[in-house]
Amino acid sequence: MNQQYPSVLLEKAVGEFAKLPGIGRKTAMRLVLHLLRQDTATVEAFSSAISTLKKEVKYCKVCHNISDTDVCRICSNPSRDVSTVCVVENIRDVMAVENTQQYRGLYHVLGGVISPMDGIGPSDLEIESLVNRVKEGTVKEVILALSSTMEGDTTNFYIFRKLASCDVKITVIARGISIGDELQYTDEVTLGRSIVNRVAFTGTL
Amino acid sequence: MNQQYPSVLLEKAVGEFAKLPGIGRKTAMRLVLHLLRQDTATVEAFSSAISTLKKEVKYCKVCHNISDTDVCRICSNPSRDVSTVCVVENIRDVMAVENTQQYRGLYHVLGGVISPMDGIGPSDLEIESLVNRVKEGTVKEVILALSSTMEGDTTNFYIFRKLASCDVKITVIARGISIGDELQYTDEVTLGRSIVNRVAFTGTL
Repeated sequence: MNQQYPSVLLEKAVGEFAKLPGIGRKTAMRLVLHLLRQDTATVEAFSSAISTLKKEVKYCKVCHNISDTDVCRICSNPSRDVSTVCVVENIRDVMAVENTQQYRGLYHVLGGVISPMDGIGPSDLEIESLVNRVKEGTVKEVILALSSTMEGDTTNFYIFRKLASCDVKITVIARGISIGDELQYTDEVTLGRSIVNRVAFTGTL
Repeated sequence: MNQQYPSVLLEKAVGEFAKLPGIGRKTAMRLVLHLLRQDTATVEAFSSAISTLKKEVKYCKVCHNISDTDVCRICSNPSRDVSTVCVVENIRDVMAVENTQQYRGLYHVLGGVISPMDGIGPSDLEIESLVNRVKEGTVKEVILALSSTMEGDTTNFYIFRKLASCDVKITVIARGISIGDELQYTDEVTLGRSIVNRVAFTGTL
């Protein structure tokens, strides 16, 4: 539908919103009209928060997580365990692991997983820097916490081979049935793997 | 869930997006990370399109539609019929009527409908300016094209009474079953009204 916009400025703003993933022109129009109803200061705050973020955001030199400083809050926190590094795909995964409050080590953000279909090879990811980081000698354990997909598994294996010559323990996060899941609804592959990889029962979860 | 953001700038940008209607913090995060992956020029274009819109947009002096100029494209178009004014709630409704390509008259954007529940009275809407416009004498017909809701009907009736002393024809857009609808699925009120307000069959739709 070739809609006639009453204003070029409006059309431009709607067009920009509609470029965002999962936002069509109708939703974009709704959001823009919502912003138009707000006062100038509110709209200015919205607009500048985004442009400031893009201009001033940094990525941690050590783990490549998003940060306001050269070295991120996690890497510069003296109470974190520097001997353990958890390898994740992206910033959201760091936040997901942090939210569990079960992990006190550091992270390494790859920036994705190896995916030939999308044209992403090992050189597009922060794998080289991970290897260098491990070679420095402080890291005793590398935890692979990538998605349980073909691409994630491929990347796990690639990193495993790259680190083979280093004196470091390589582990992978446990895979099995989710807490609270009923067996009858669990998919066969997960259930099958969770039987093969069963662990000793210790009386606690 | 009290999420720990790795960056204050990121948290701010996510917070601003999450203020938009229908966008939660998870979606906001997804959109912000999408923008972060774009180059600086793209993000700048997004941010400035919104702030420019808010700063520079005008509302037509005559019909109160959104516009880049003091008098909008429709009002200043000499080929439009100045004797007919279609009263609508908002800018989106102007666009909806324009898209039908069935109307060649002018508009009057009220800015909403009378809704005591939301604290919107007649003085919050552009009703006074509509009455003044009609009193100038050029307008021969006022078409009420508001939502078919209690609030829309109330507003219709209010405008009807306000214009009672003026020499102007007041019409309301036809209500009945939608084109393509099957009778069995039409709600009773609509079907009942469409029988009461039946029109002469002319052989064409």
